[in-house]
Amino acid sequence: MCGPRSPEAPCSARVCRAPGTGLLLLSYLAYLVLGAGVFWALEGRAARYSSHIFQRDKWERLKNFTHLDDPALDQLIRDIIQAYKDGTQLLGSTTSMGRWEFVGSFFFSVSTITTIGYGNLSPETMAARLFCIFFALVGIPLNLVVLNRLGHLMQQGVHRCVQWLGGSWQDPAQAPLLAGSAALLSGLLLFLLLPPLLFSHMEGWSYMESFYFAFITLSTVGFGDYVIGMDPSRKYPVWYKNIVSLWILFGMAWQALIIKMILSLLEMPGDMCTCSLRCIKGR
Amino acid sequence: MCGPRSPEAPCSARVCRAPGTGLLLLSYLAYLVLGAGVFWALEGRAARYSSHIFQRDKWERLKNFTHLDDPALDQLIRDIIQAYKDGTQLLGSTTSMGRWEFVGSFFFSVSTITTIGYGNLSPETMAARLFCIFFALVGIPLNLVVLNRLGHLMQQGVHRCVQWLGGSWQDPAQAPLLAGSAALLSGLLLFLLLPPLLFSHMEGWSYMESFYFAFITLSTVGFGDYVIGMDPSRKYPVWYKNIVSLWILFGMAWQALIIKMILSLLEMPGDMCTCSLRCIKGR
Ligand SMILES: [K+]
Ligand SMILES: [K+]
Repeated sequence: MCGPRSPEAPCSARVCRAPGTGLLLLSYLAYLVLGAGVFWALEGRAARYSSHIFQRDKWERLKNFTHLDDPALDQLIRDIIQAYKDGTQLLGSTTSMGRWEFVGSFFFSVSTITTIGYGNLSPETMAARLFCIFFALVGIPLNLVVLNRLGHLMQQGVHRCVQWLGGSWQDPAQAPLLAGSAALLSGLLLFLLLPPLLFSHMEGWSYMESFYFAFITLSTVGFGDYVIGMDPSRKYPVWYKNIVSLWILFGMAWQALIIKMILSLLEMPGDMCTCSLRCIKGR
Repeated sequence: MCGPRSPEAPCSARVCRAPGTGLLLLSYLAYLVLGAGVFWALEGRAARYSSHIFQRDKWERLKNFTHLDDPALDQLIRDIIQAYKDGTQLLGSTTSMGRWEFVGSFFFSVSTITTIGYGNLSPETMAARLFCIFFALVGIPLNLVVLNRLGHLMQQGVHRCVQWLGGSWQDPAQAPLLAGSAALLSGLLLFLLLPPLLFSHMEGWSYMESFYFAFITLSTVGFGDYVIGMDPSRKYPVWYKNIVSLWILFGMAWQALIIKMILSLLEMPGDMCTCSLRCIKGR
């Protein structure tokens, strides 16, 4: 990522010159809000219209249902699935996360630039799809920048904790190892083992289902079989979605660190190990 | 990928020691086949069973349909959507890509470790979900290794092409710029502009829909609103799925290069620099 450089001064100077984390997070948020607004504007009307059509069709089909034969029933099922995939409001009630309102559009923006892509909502109009492509083209790298920064901050935090706690571990060779395992364990607890407790309480999933959701989300696979805030029979408090957003952000930064670590183990000409190795040899 | 390092000799020596690309691709394929086999074994029986239940329920509901009121209809729709999300075979015919057979399981494995996660299939049994987590934990880094290797080869290929063609551009300062734009343009053509022609021919989508599918796939967002090989009314030739798999592999490697490029434009300070900095201090 960062080319070979030798003198110390320009590197630390470059760190100082970087835009502040607060500013970065603010632009990230602004970008998401912008995206949510555009998707809302582009998809909102179309979705309301197609929902209206679907509701009318549904009742017409119902009236004629006694005449339905096997292919007609298959067609009805096909239509329902298509309408579901189109994000149409099929049932009497849906949560705001499942509709192209501001909350839903914001969540869609997050799921797009993090490349999770749950697919509980996906753009139906060509205009929204085109915008989605350009939005992702800038948004995905922006998201990576934010994740890198957060990962960096988390690493620094862990290092400081280790320094503060470990008066006994003053052996400098063991410090990175200690910091690594501390980051691994605290992250595992904070991002993968504890949040499922909240999800299972809020969504009525089992702990294992919630854990599966957490892993599939943070690894950015995002099958969309489990998505938070989508059950219309449940009341979600306002802080819940904000907490989940923060969890996604920090959890992805942490999981990116872990995947980088596994990557450096898998890839024999690894950067990390040779680097630390040479550090130790150099000393 | 090869991190910042100063002496030339150890770096090239390390590249030589790396497992050959053929071997790497072979293990990648073996890993995917292994995953497909396990998912097939774990999900296949459960899916056949739930499909059977659904077909029976469908006909029972149909018989009683004249008595269905508004909430009962909503429940029917809910059941159909749930069954659809569960990957149940709802209709008389589905393509093998949409079922937990070997082809479908293989495609699911690909979609998992590339983190695309279309979600047209997702594991229903707890055993398959647990396996999915471990499969992804190793598979995602393995996939990154393969993509990095392919990206490297593609870069080398472009460099060679530039050297071969450009007797006139012997200016060494311009060569990387030229190689970069050549890679950008040829990749754009090869991975984003031409494949949609094939998809629209094979799937009956418009060119724009196919382009949207191509972008959403290669960026690993994978909403799952468009997935290839899923239309039961179409005949897909055998070479089609293989070509698409190759396209995903090389296209993702190319798109990773592009996103890295945008990332390096967006991100002023590099992260790796602290590592090389420490190395240099240590030396
Ligand atoms: K996805
Ligand atoms: K995804």
